[in-house]
Amino acid sequence: MKILVINAGSSSLKYQLINTDEHRMLAKGLCERVGSKDSYIKHGADKDERIFAQYMADHEEALHVVFDALCHSERSTITSIDEIDAIGHRIVHGGNYFDSSALITPDVIQKIEELCTLAPLHNPPALKCIQVCQRMAPEMPQVAVFDTSFFQTLPPSAYMYPLPYELCQKHQIRKYGAHGTSHRYIAQRCAALMERPIEDLKIITCHLGNGCSISAIDHGIAVDTSMGFTPLDGLMMGTRCGAIDPAIIPFLEEREDLTPTQINDLMNKQSGLKGVSGISNDMRDVRKGAEEGNERAILAYEMYAHSIRKYLGQYFIEMAGADAIVLTAGVGENCDRMRRMVFAGLQPLGIILDQEKNRRDYHGKERFISRDDSPVKIIVIPTNEEFMIAQDTLEIVNAQAS
Amino acid sequence: MKILVINAGSSSLKYQLINTDEHRMLAKGLCERVGSKDSYIKHGADKDERIFAQYMADHEEALHVVFDALCHSERSTITSIDEIDAIGHRIVHGGNYFDSSALITPDVIQKIEELCTLAPLHNPPALKCIQVCQRMAPEMPQVAVFDTSFFQTLPPSAYMYPLPYELCQKHQIRKYGAHGTSHRYIAQRCAALMERPIEDLKIITCHLGNGCSISAIDHGIAVDTSMGFTPLDGLMMGTRCGAIDPAIIPFLEEREDLTPTQINDLMNKQSGLKGVSGISNDMRDVRKGAEEGNERAILAYEMYAHSIRKYLGQYFIEMAGADAIVLTAGVGENCDRMRRMVFAGLQPLGIILDQEKNRRDYHGKERFISRDDSPVKIIVIPTNEEFMIAQDTLEIVNAQAS
Repeated sequence: MKILVINAGSSSLKYQLINTDEHRMLAKGLCERVGSKDSYIKHGADKDERIFAQYMADHEEALHVVFDALCHSERSTITSIDEIDAIGHRIVHGGNYFDSSALITPDVIQKIEELCTLAPLHNPPALKCIQVCQRMAPEMPQVAVFDTSFFQTLPPSAYMYPLPYELCQKHQIRKYGAHGTSHRYIAQRCAALMERPIEDLKIITCHLGNGCSISAIDHGIAVDTSMGFTPLDGLMMGTRCGAIDPAIIPFLEEREDLTPTQINDLMNKQSGLKGVSGISNDMRDVRKGAEEGNERAILAYEMYAHSIRKYLGQYFIEMAGADAIVLTAGVGENCDRMRRMVFAGLQPLGIILDQEKNRRDYHGKERFISRDDSPVKIIVIPTNEEFMIAQDTLEIVNAQAS
Repeated sequence: MKILVINAGSSSLKYQLINTDEHRMLAKGLCERVGSKDSYIKHGADKDERIFAQYMADHEEALHVVFDALCHSERSTITSIDEIDAIGHRIVHGGNYFDSSALITPDVIQKIEELCTLAPLHNPPALKCIQVCQRMAPEMPQVAVFDTSFFQTLPPSAYMYPLPYELCQKHQIRKYGAHGTSHRYIAQRCAALMERPIEDLKIITCHLGNGCSISAIDHGIAVDTSMGFTPLDGLMMGTRCGAIDPAIIPFLEEREDLTPTQINDLMNKQSGLKGVSGISNDMRDVRKGAEEGNERAILAYEMYAHSIRKYLGQYFIEMAGADAIVLTAGVGENCDRMRRMVFAGLQPLGIILDQEKNRRDYHGKERFISRDDSPVKIIVIPTNEEFMIAQDTLEIVNAQAS
């Protein structure tokens, strides 16, 4: 089956065309700066990738550009939309409605719309894409895959916040989590690599990119995760502060005369690695700075490791141990030095990094980096949310057909 | 030596007269609602305790009432202030200035004054008490014992927040911790009970009262603690929410049209056990509610345990294990059911509660409640901050004299 995966951001649109029979990506691309004059599309097939400047006023125009690139460009891989069997959409927020992926129906659309208040930057463009696709190919099955649904299994003790109860009910304030598709994918791959059923395993999954989150997956069920009501909660990230003393916020609002929007911006865009190091939100730059002796870069580096260790600890106790710790995304997959800091000294707990395996660079390869005798396995698994979305889409379409 | 310990709150004044030679409390009491028309003093000596309604306009008047009660009341234990050898003051905030207790000098007073911006409700009344005592007994040595100084050993990776660096510098935003005197006391008692030097031990100390904090004490040195820039950070408490997704704050400010002061109030006074259960900030009431099947009480109870386990986990990983976990204060000392929930299922990590010892009620007694074969000891130790303050005062006065 050929499945098109669409991931709409606030001003971007990523896509992949996947042949699920062969587990093969046929084409992929990215529309950037949608809505701005200097918008462009980067389209690739096989090893070839090209960038075209192309004005796209909104996500509707972007989708037309995408279908053109897929069907009619020099690099086209199909000749008509009709060759696509189904479309899978990544939806950021599924609220309490969705604990799994869902075939798109008028009811599903209405619920995604309702949830726009909780994800005002992400659910509206995704919704737009669904509607455009429905117009362009009315008969094609479409599936919504939610970034939050994997965490609907969390117990109330993990997802509730200790704020006034009525207020939380009124505004639907609870932990929803994020990156769910990535955590689910790497947990499944982890079980496959360990050659054990996921139902037998306690796994801590770490998605460490520009956004960071860690989850506790107990016998296949997500029992906790670090992102919360919003993706600001939890770990220190590229530009996000993660969990801090909440009293700092009203304190800063008063001292610096900041509005709620301004402080929110400050916590989301000016903090994390960038705010501490003053260099960059990119771990590669911060690492370089640290290696050159820049004190704030060193501090940012150490704080980042400390922040990861805190959540490893929480979930290690929460599940009374772990069979595996999985790392993914930019930092998790590529930064051997950060991994060394994160796991330093944990041998007494049975978490033993193999220094040699950790150093070796198998870019993009799944691999164990714990010592063979380490009771807790440490595994690097490149994430593949698009594959997961295609997989869900395939299953739902097949179930529908049968 | 007879040492008077003074603990000034925003509208209260607690005191104890301690004979350090005999480790004996001679008298103690509490002035409540200072500054209000219905202020009163509760004064006790030996097993006898009496309450007198007595108008006290401010902390100066309260101190006079205290000295009267100590010297001239029916229940007096001394006949003159001159019998007191020294005074030890509990000071909430020592900022970055004080990493240990200090003999009070004009320089120390100036620094405590400077720190009033960081502890506007607590440092000013304490300062007032110091000044009144200096006037009443100009020759008497006075010592300041800071609630924060024990945590000045934290590494920057633990005490810095991942917010814009310059902003943190400008406003002195960092983790200061609180309850330091209590954590220090129970850690020392833990080492004594284990008959091992504190320098050989990894201890997790849990102060669980209406305010709650947990600390990691690695070989005698505090390396992390849950309270932060303010005592709102960290654990869910009686009325405080602890760490939450910081994005919730601007969200609520906008949706509920709250000022920074109002949201701060909500997080400090309307949240925690009280906010979730809707019953009370007192664990005894919440426990009763939970036992009667009240759903929100059960939820509050479970969230509270979950919150404690998170910090146990953080510090367990941070120190790569622990030799002992110590519990103190109202909930820690008295709530066997909460302790059972906190330690449930942790046997695989070597943390094994003895159900029978945990149930037995030795009110006010130091005791092991882990099984004899538990690698990690679990110990209940009633805290005694006043004793610790008297001890510090004694040592500083003796060092001064020699």
